[in-house]
Amino acid sequence: MPFSKMPQITLITIGNELLKGTIVNTNASDAGRMLRESGFSLDRVLTVGDEREAIMGAIRSELITADVVLCCGGLGPTRDDITKHTLAEVFGGELVLHGPTRAYLEDRYARRGRKLEGSNLLQAMVPESCEVVPNPQGTAPGMLFRQDGKFLLSMPGVPFEMRHMVETQLIPLLKANFPPRFFRSRMLRLFGIPESRLADRMETIIPDLPGELKLAYLPGEEGIRLELSVEGDPVEAAKLEQALGNASVILSRHLEDVLYSDENENLEVVISRIFHEKKLSLAIAESLTGGMLTATVVSVSGASDFLKGSVTAYETAVKIDLLGVPKALIEKHTVVSAEVAQSMAEGVRNLLGADIGLATTGLAETGSEKEMPHAWLGYADRFGTDARHETFVFDRKLNIRKASFAALYFCIKNLRTNFV
Amino acid sequence: MPFSKMPQITLITIGNELLKGTIVNTNASDAGRMLRESGFSLDRVLTVGDEREAIMGAIRSELITADVVLCCGGLGPTRDDITKHTLAEVFGGELVLHGPTRAYLEDRYARRGRKLEGSNLLQAMVPESCEVVPNPQGTAPGMLFRQDGKFLLSMPGVPFEMRHMVETQLIPLLKANFPPRFFRSRMLRLFGIPESRLADRMETIIPDLPGELKLAYLPGEEGIRLELSVEGDPVEAAKLEQALGNASVILSRHLEDVLYSDENENLEVVISRIFHEKKLSLAIAESLTGGMLTATVVSVSGASDFLKGSVTAYETAVKIDLLGVPKALIEKHTVVSAEVAQSMAEGVRNLLGADIGLATTGLAETGSEKEMPHAWLGYADRFGTDARHETFVFDRKLNIRKASFAALYFCIKNLRTNFV
Repeated sequence: MPFSKMPQITLITIGNELLKGTIVNTNASDAGRMLRESGFSLDRVLTVGDEREAIMGAIRSELITADVVLCCGGLGPTRDDITKHTLAEVFGGELVLHGPTRAYLEDRYARRGRKLEGSNLLQAMVPESCEVVPNPQGTAPGMLFRQDGKFLLSMPGVPFEMRHMVETQLIPLLKANFPPRFFRSRMLRLFGIPESRLADRMETIIPDLPGELKLAYLPGEEGIRLELSVEGDPVEAAKLEQALGNASVILSRHLEDVLYSDENENLEVVISRIFHEKKLSLAIAESLTGGMLTATVVSVSGASDFLKGSVTAYETAVKIDLLGVPKALIEKHTVVSAEVAQSMAEGVRNLLGADIGLATTGLAETGSEKEMPHAWLGYADRFGTDARHETFVFDRKLNIRKASFAALYFCIKNLRTNFV
Repeated sequence: MPFSKMPQITLITIGNELLKGTIVNTNASDAGRMLRESGFSLDRVLTVGDEREAIMGAIRSELITADVVLCCGGLGPTRDDITKHTLAEVFGGELVLHGPTRAYLEDRYARRGRKLEGSNLLQAMVPESCEVVPNPQGTAPGMLFRQDGKFLLSMPGVPFEMRHMVETQLIPLLKANFPPRFFRSRMLRLFGIPESRLADRMETIIPDLPGELKLAYLPGEEGIRLELSVEGDPVEAAKLEQALGNASVILSRHLEDVLYSDENENLEVVISRIFHEKKLSLAIAESLTGGMLTATVVSVSGASDFLKGSVTAYETAVKIDLLGVPKALIEKHTVVSAEVAQSMAEGVRNLLGADIGLATTGLAETGSEKEMPHAWLGYADRFGTDARHETFVFDRKLNIRKASFAALYFCIKNLRTNFV
């Protein structure tokens, strides 16, 4: 088959909860991402409810234009296996008992001390027109139908079961039947630069970048993710890979002052790596972030190697009594100030006997539209202290997360300067 | 129009990122939920990329079967307003400058100290076949097209702009043209009961419930949400509402031991309300939850009224030195024990001078498959201390969140018993 023929792929996600909005369609984004990383692309996603007519209409119409139709969900006893029955109608044939699936299910139930019976046994029944695709993560098997050179693969709706089937079954099947495009991407992570200013700076960098490169900006709470990608004919793979590598080097150099990872690592992973490498320890004092900064650090496995602990000093008295912030300092500068942030960082560093102290103080929300929510971040190590100011929008929870991420970035900047 | 004629509604979400999986389709779930709460329902969701042919094919085919087609996304200068141009082709007519939108945009830009020019001015151009729908949250206006008694409403893709337009424009428009079904729902929130055990208990309760009631179980990290709903002809509204009220009373009574809210409040909101009502103060000591428990409490506005602060005692030395947990107690019972959890709770209560002390200690992950991650939760007040054990699965981040929620539920149970 020629390279130019990329398969048209449609995903049909089946489930009333998706239409009612009680759950978000993460299966669609997971499948889309996994296909893209393998050189394929999703062309359409269609969501319908758990109803025979809706599912049948969707399958029949999508089979007209798509080369590959993926179905997801509407399987299992609580759904009356609506997708399975509908597929049997579309592709013809009766439901028959599939011996290997029955044996697999019996074994699976036995290991949990249960017997395979009743509605659970029905999961081993499949349309005789299908090839059974094993689902080692769950109970409802996948089903593959072939018609006029087209494929339909029905997958379970449980997210980790679907992801496993996409990776181990769908992608190999696609690669065997449709030569994938070559695709590679790299993600640079930036902090402390607004999207508009990045766009301005990129204007001067873009002329230096290889022509094959595609750029995408993905702004979020952890700064901006800048995706570099190349795709094309597999015979060009070496050239494209080279272009991607060159672009990554050029961009990392130009954006060094705002770059925290050129390998798509999040802030907490970068922090954890630096503390491990430098064999330093950390103590945290939080006010407006109220535990979120520490929780973000702790979310990475191995945090216990370097994190001594933290104090959430929500009440001013706690800042004074426990962290040792001088009362006079608070009276002179107010509790949300560079001076208090630095004193908190130094205070918790001493209290917990850590190499580095990191602190936040600020307002996650304000009583009036006149005062913007804002924060001071404090940093302390054996060389001294540093502070940084951040302003926010009117969204309490978002501001707490943004202040936590800003504190991590501020810490990374100081560590990179002071502990080379 | 007769009640039985519910409009068929399709949502077309437009955007390459949705197909590439770089973002999740929250607009689909938001629109579905908002429509349902207003007595309507979404029948299909279709996602296509930012391409003229794909958008045109989707609009034309959905207009055949749907009464109402909603489009979302593909507007704005960075998308070349692909949706707008395609709609002009489908419904006919040129793009014309819309005076009121131009005036609105000029004012909006002026308030930010900017001039409306270049590509931004193009946002005031709309197909002459449409009625302009104002978007006071953003820059790209909504566009309404009518054809043969059907509607197509094009909405911006920015989530909060779309939600605002659904609420203020779409739902009133639907109500004026299609009599909605009567729909009401209530959400009970339960904790500490597995779904299978709840199903068993429900078997004995269901015969007592009104026949009109529909039940849905939505398990998650904060326990199980049990949705009760009724829907039907508006002439039956009083009867249906009564049935919903009765069912809520019956279920709340039967499930009292595991119920934490009959008004869909999350654990941190319930905790905040109890502390405010009882005029109590809280201090928290965390080990495995590493700040997440405090961050969850702090996420609710007004936490500063009752939260004194918290200590994350990640290192054992911090538990001993700062929280005053006796070293001998740790040596005798190990650091993950009922005794140490209670001592931490009592210790932080004394350290920060609070009415209530709440503590967590445990393993969010273990080195081997033989030992399950688990935690002890500790509670202390002036009447004494209490402890509770929780076991988890092999997922560090999930276990940290689950332990935090379990601690909040444990605290609620103790407060309800000790402070009537």
